[in-house]
Amino acid sequence: MSDPLAAARRLAPRFAGRAATHDRDGSFPVDDFADLRTDGLFGLMVPTHLGGLGAGFADYAAVAFELARGNGATALVFNMHASVTGALAGIPEAMASALGVPDEFFTARDEILRAAAQGAFYAVAMSERGAGSRLSKLTTEYVREGDAYLIKGTKSFVSGSGQANAYLVAARSADDPQTVSQFLVPADTPGIRVEETWDSLGMRATCSHDLHLDVRVARTTLLGGVEGLALWFAQLMPHWLVASYAAVYVGVAQAAIDACVAHVSGRGVADLPWVRARVGRADAAVAAARLAVTEAARRVDSDPGDSETNRWVWRAKLLAGTTAADVAASMLEAAGTSATRRGNPLERLYRDARCGSLQPATSDVCADWLGIAAMGGDPDTDGSAPRW
Amino acid sequence: MSDPLAAARRLAPRFAGRAATHDRDGSFPVDDFADLRTDGLFGLMVPTHLGGLGAGFADYAAVAFELARGNGATALVFNMHASVTGALAGIPEAMASALGVPDEFFTARDEILRAAAQGAFYAVAMSERGAGSRLSKLTTEYVREGDAYLIKGTKSFVSGSGQANAYLVAARSADDPQTVSQFLVPADTPGIRVEETWDSLGMRATCSHDLHLDVRVARTTLLGGVEGLALWFAQLMPHWLVASYAAVYVGVAQAAIDACVAHVSGRGVADLPWVRARVGRADAAVAAARLAVTEAARRVDSDPGDSETNRWVWRAKLLAGTTAADVAASMLEAAGTSATRRGNPLERLYRDARCGSLQPATSDVCADWLGIAAMGGDPDTDGSAPRW
Amino acid sequence: MSDPLAAARRLAPRFAGRAATHDRDGSFPVDDFADLRTDGLFGLMVPTHLGGLGAGFADYAAVAFELARGNGATALVFNMHASVTGALAGIPEAMASALGVPDEFFTARDEILRAAAQGAFYAVAMSERGAGSRLSKLTTEYVREGDAYLIKGTKSFVSGSGQANAYLVAARSADDPQTVSQFLVPADTPGIRVEETWDSLGMRATCSHDLHLDVRVARTTLLGGVEGLALWFAQLMPHWLVASYAAVYVGVAQAAIDACVAHVSGRGVADLPWVRARVGRADAAVAAARLAVTEAARRVDSDPGDSETNRWVWRAKLLAGTTAADVAASMLEAAGTSATRRGNPLERLYRDARCGSLQPATSDVCADWLGIAAMGGDPDTDGSAPRW
Amino acid sequence: MSDPLAAARRLAPRFAGRAATHDRDGSFPVDDFADLRTDGLFGLMVPTHLGGLGAGFADYAAVAFELARGNGATALVFNMHASVTGALAGIPEAMASALGVPDEFFTARDEILRAAAQGAFYAVAMSERGAGSRLSKLTTEYVREGDAYLIKGTKSFVSGSGQANAYLVAARSADDPQTVSQFLVPADTPGIRVEETWDSLGMRATCSHDLHLDVRVARTTLLGGVEGLALWFAQLMPHWLVASYAAVYVGVAQAAIDACVAHVSGRGVADLPWVRARVGRADAAVAAARLAVTEAARRVDSDPGDSETNRWVWRAKLLAGTTAADVAASMLEAAGTSATRRGNPLERLYRDARCGSLQPATSDVCADWLGIAAMGGDPDTDGSAPRW
Repeated sequence: MSDPLAAARRLAPRFAGRAATHDRDGSFPVDDFADLRTDGLFGLMVPTHLGGLGAGFADYAAVAFELARGNGATALVFNMHASVTGALAGIPEAMASALGVPDEFFTARDEILRAAAQGAFYAVAMSERGAGSRLSKLTTEYVREGDAYLIKGTKSFVSGSGQANAYLVAARSADDPQTVSQFLVPADTPGIRVEETWDSLGMRATCSHDLHLDVRVARTTLLGGVEGLALWFAQLMPHWLVASYAAVYVGVAQAAIDACVAHVSGRGVADLPWVRARVGRADAAVAAARLAVTEAARRVDSDPGDSETNRWVWRAKLLAGTTAADVAASMLEAAGTSATRRGNPLERLYRDARCGSLQPATSDVCADWLGIAAMGGDPDTDGSAPRW
Repeated sequence: MSDPLAAARRLAPRFAGRAATHDRDGSFPVDDFADLRTDGLFGLMVPTHLGGLGAGFADYAAVAFELARGNGATALVFNMHASVTGALAGIPEAMASALGVPDEFFTARDEILRAAAQGAFYAVAMSERGAGSRLSKLTTEYVREGDAYLIKGTKSFVSGSGQANAYLVAARSADDPQTVSQFLVPADTPGIRVEETWDSLGMRATCSHDLHLDVRVARTTLLGGVEGLALWFAQLMPHWLVASYAAVYVGVAQAAIDACVAHVSGRGVADLPWVRARVGRADAAVAAARLAVTEAARRVDSDPGDSETNRWVWRAKLLAGTTAADVAASMLEAAGTSATRRGNPLERLYRDARCGSLQPATSDVCADWLGIAAMGGDPDTDGSAPRW
Repeated sequence: MSDPLAAARRLAPRFAGRAATHDRDGSFPVDDFADLRTDGLFGLMVPTHLGGLGAGFADYAAVAFELARGNGATALVFNMHASVTGALAGIPEAMASALGVPDEFFTARDEILRAAAQGAFYAVAMSERGAGSRLSKLTTEYVREGDAYLIKGTKSFVSGSGQANAYLVAARSADDPQTVSQFLVPADTPGIRVEETWDSLGMRATCSHDLHLDVRVARTTLLGGVEGLALWFAQLMPHWLVASYAAVYVGVAQAAIDACVAHVSGRGVADLPWVRARVGRADAAVAAARLAVTEAARRVDSDPGDSETNRWVWRAKLLAGTTAADVAASMLEAAGTSATRRGNPLERLYRDARCGSLQPATSDVCADWLGIAAMGGDPDTDGSAPRW
Repeated sequence: MSDPLAAARRLAPRFAGRAATHDRDGSFPVDDFADLRTDGLFGLMVPTHLGGLGAGFADYAAVAFELARGNGATALVFNMHASVTGALAGIPEAMASALGVPDEFFTARDEILRAAAQGAFYAVAMSERGAGSRLSKLTTEYVREGDAYLIKGTKSFVSGSGQANAYLVAARSADDPQTVSQFLVPADTPGIRVEETWDSLGMRATCSHDLHLDVRVARTTLLGGVEGLALWFAQLMPHWLVASYAAVYVGVAQAAIDACVAHVSGRGVADLPWVRARVGRADAAVAAARLAVTEAARRVDSDPGDSETNRWVWRAKLLAGTTAADVAASMLEAAGTSATRRGNPLERLYRDARCGSLQPATSDVCADWLGIAAMGGDPDTDGSAPRW
């Protein structure tokens, strides 16, 4: 598969055709993921020398947008996999060495990536009820025992739970609560249990259930080979924590416009002036949000970690979330009551689109962050609420 | 039951307790309606000399607001019953005489109202797929055959279908397509079939299914006793067609604030500045929309049919619809991801609230109507789209 | 003058005819104030037994709305006079006694009110640059010297400066910085100097210049006869500090609709669908904001100081400020470039309307206050920023 | 001058320093234009072989954004000059030949451009009162008389009137009303009279006065050398008619953020949560609008006349206009009353920013156009109002 974007465009209509069923049942889009695997997209972020497609963040964003036009939930789960593989692939080796990351880490990391290129699919188990995605509030703990780690706790919002081959788990050291580390825990590890708690307004097919962990894992599962790197990763790669799903929500917004245009055209009300006005304003808003996501992604590739890059990342998150919610609401209003029947794409898109602003960093937190940055402050530390 | 408002306030928490189940299943809130019957609220709009509570439109609006704080869907179905009984009770006798409405009509009308006071529950079967609620586009037809009418057609959006004791059916004369009449068809008439098509984004418990009619009814079911009065009723009583559910949607919006406050208080995030700001702005918006509904209702009682009254009716509809959708979206955003789980009141309210602007007259049509009125035109005839 | 509302309606077109000139020059509308005096409106809030019209707050709000449809700046200055007289007239005698307010205070107070009924016009000198209207930050100081007070400081935003007969001055005790008192300083007191600093975006004719004070005043000018009552007054009568000009800004918003309708009708573009939609939505928004002001005013009369009354007062302020700004911006957009020429009423109204949200309590502070109140907190003390 | 963008950035602070005076007086920024001439920016759009800087539309947009951060009015007048020179430079020669444009036209055109590179400054005299910028409604007429044309009529909104070296005048043939042509009329032609009518809410320093024409001009002043090309030009180069000033308004919006940040920082209120939220949301909105303008400009260079390019042009216009107005209003609200004093940059920017949506194509027309395009219609002909 040499052109992931073409593949994404080809797959999207298939995803769209399956979306209503998975949304209704809250079932995982297994066929979508089989398609993604077949087309090699699990290796999207894996370097070519490890068998992957060697994509950058901008490539990812373009792919995610197209997948989301088909099914936002599929794209959102895929985003988590891309985050794990992309973040691992992107770790700057020089900085890692300076932090004392041992060489064997890179061997282990490469193995993880090579497996992805061959079809392994990873999920993220970071959030916890009550803590959200803030690392500083995690209650999942680990202790080291010889060459193993014992990890115990419960994660929530684990998209793709029960489906992934391994989970990226964030946990706090029982010995030193300031130390937060990440582990890539194989899904078949004894002591992992999925509790099917996910039954949500939107993005229902992500199956973001709870994950109970009471596991013993090999020391090699420690990401980076050194404890305490989780926060460092988080701050190093805000694009994966903050904005990787921005592309997804812009795709959802575009899908809402597409669905509205199809609906009103089919019902002969496309020439009502308010329908035109709603569609026209939505078109401009989504086009602009998409540009912002593209710009953020471009800068992540060219100037990762740069403060201006980070501002674009937060802008992209804010614009994607607010635009998706506003546009989907307006498109549903333009399409009218007949589009609110379950099974109508707009009915689902209206619910899916609402979720973007709510995912961390929420739109309100993004606005706070961006305001501080624009006024010359340090948005990672000065905020009205803690960031991580 | 001497105080319907107190009754509504007493019932609302019970309705709220049952709302999640009915929303999930799309099942009719039969217990809510049993409560309404027990408390005599089916007779709300029935004159006291016929055994009812003799409420005016303002009384109705206050009751509907409270019921909707419990369950918007219940309040919306109740609204249809109140529309039928309220419109019948409100027919100006002098004008009716001038139109040639025979005296026996009033005898029949009183019987209908007396039955309501004793527990009969009426539904409205006016809308049709493709025609919306525009009388001029109806395809359901009737022919007179001796002392009977044969009515044939299919209605959609029939809230309370399968539950009501009788349906108010609008149909067009097969002999004279310009003549549109209304019939109160008993639910046990042979040839009535409910097709369970209602499976909607919001207001799911209204069971607004399709109703297939191929019936023969007695001549006494013709409302008014004279054919062709449907449009006249529509224009005479715009409050029942345009704004009676405005009170419902303001109640839904208030319920969203209530649920958000409970949610954020319970999670200790009530002092985040953006939560405060969202709640504060929502509080003001809902309070103002409620005043507008109250004002419209007050004028409907004191100056029915007056052009200024009608402007208030359309304002109330516009404000209720837009406020409900905006407020519910903002409250969900304030409450965060944890409130999007199904079963959380905000998750339902967000979907219910979206429906207000879409119900005819839609918000865009209301804005068009009001703009024309403010500029001195005739909003019932000059609009960018036909009104009925 | 038995009907102040009729008088206001009669005067408004005259004010409107003079508004462009005073806006252009930033000159005081002396003829408007001569009209107000002639019609006895300076005595609007003065009890009838003191020669006034004995109006309540609801009467005031209705009058202010009408005056503002003529000229918002005139109405805003009049509001300050009404605040002084209304607050004085409204002091609850029982509570005053409990606080140790001496009897002679009421004699002095009645004299002030009687003078107003006979044509005296009072202005408010409370705000200071840097402190805004927060009493806790005032730098103007006073010391007692025998039977006199020496007051020294500079006030800003003194609407009607150079025109009023006396100024209500808030100052801090030099001996005890926690003690803030208010004085009614005659305009002809030696040591008062107006510095013409007011040259503002909007509400230009209010002549809200700086006032430099270095004065010796009689002890009888101390409002209440007891020092330290300023904060008590502020909290007792939030309607005069927070929302009395809400009615003014709703009047300005209505004037913007009126001007837009006249403009587009005159240019033959009234039937453009977006013009209709803008006017229609503006009509509903202003009507609702006006109801909120009316409701707040009604409650101020019937339940002054009640917590629910206060919530309505803050809602009215928020809704009036945001509605005025939004509506004027939309009406200007509906009217088009030709309405942006200076001298066109919409050009002025667009600038005037913007000022409402900015006047304390600003819209953002109102939202904060209302959010806290809705969540059961104490909005006067828990806010993100100090209130006074 | 090899780098126009660097020059623009260097000049902007100078323009900003002069802006308040020109805004106050409605006087032309002659020093700004002297600077532009000195730096060779009148030749920005002139091909290098004619002595110019050979800029493309994207270069123009970047320059215009920077100039507007200094003074939007200066940038707007400069935009008109850039439109004339850019449109002339961009005429596709092949298409011109096919239309029968004589060769000598290109000689004349090159002369016009060469003069610009040497410091000539051109203005546009297209709009007329009542017709707006719609060519189909013009009343200015011309007749041919031997080798000359007689042109008679009155133009409005002529930015830079009284300052330019020549005016691009659109007029209708007296013999054939369907034929609309354009002439480049030297400013010193007898019979030209500027009537100082421009006294506007915003963009005051553009001196967009009325221009009365009763002139005889040489045949060589006919643009294209063939009559009737005006509409063809208009449709060929919508970027110059629709969106060239989009860059200006995004620059104005950015200037509003800059001014707000400076203001709140200077007053110590930068850490109020609502100030942060306003600044943060404005930052994201302006960044996105700027991207849209850049994208439109990039496509104008690479795919002029393409339907997708045109959609971006209209999107850019819509987003720039609405963003500028919304952002400036919000920044003024964040900054507070102290920023409404005349002379404060925000006070001016608030007025300047409002004008973008009102300039043709207005935001409402843009939304209509874009809605039709998104639904597959022909937005140039199907609209709710005629486009030209």
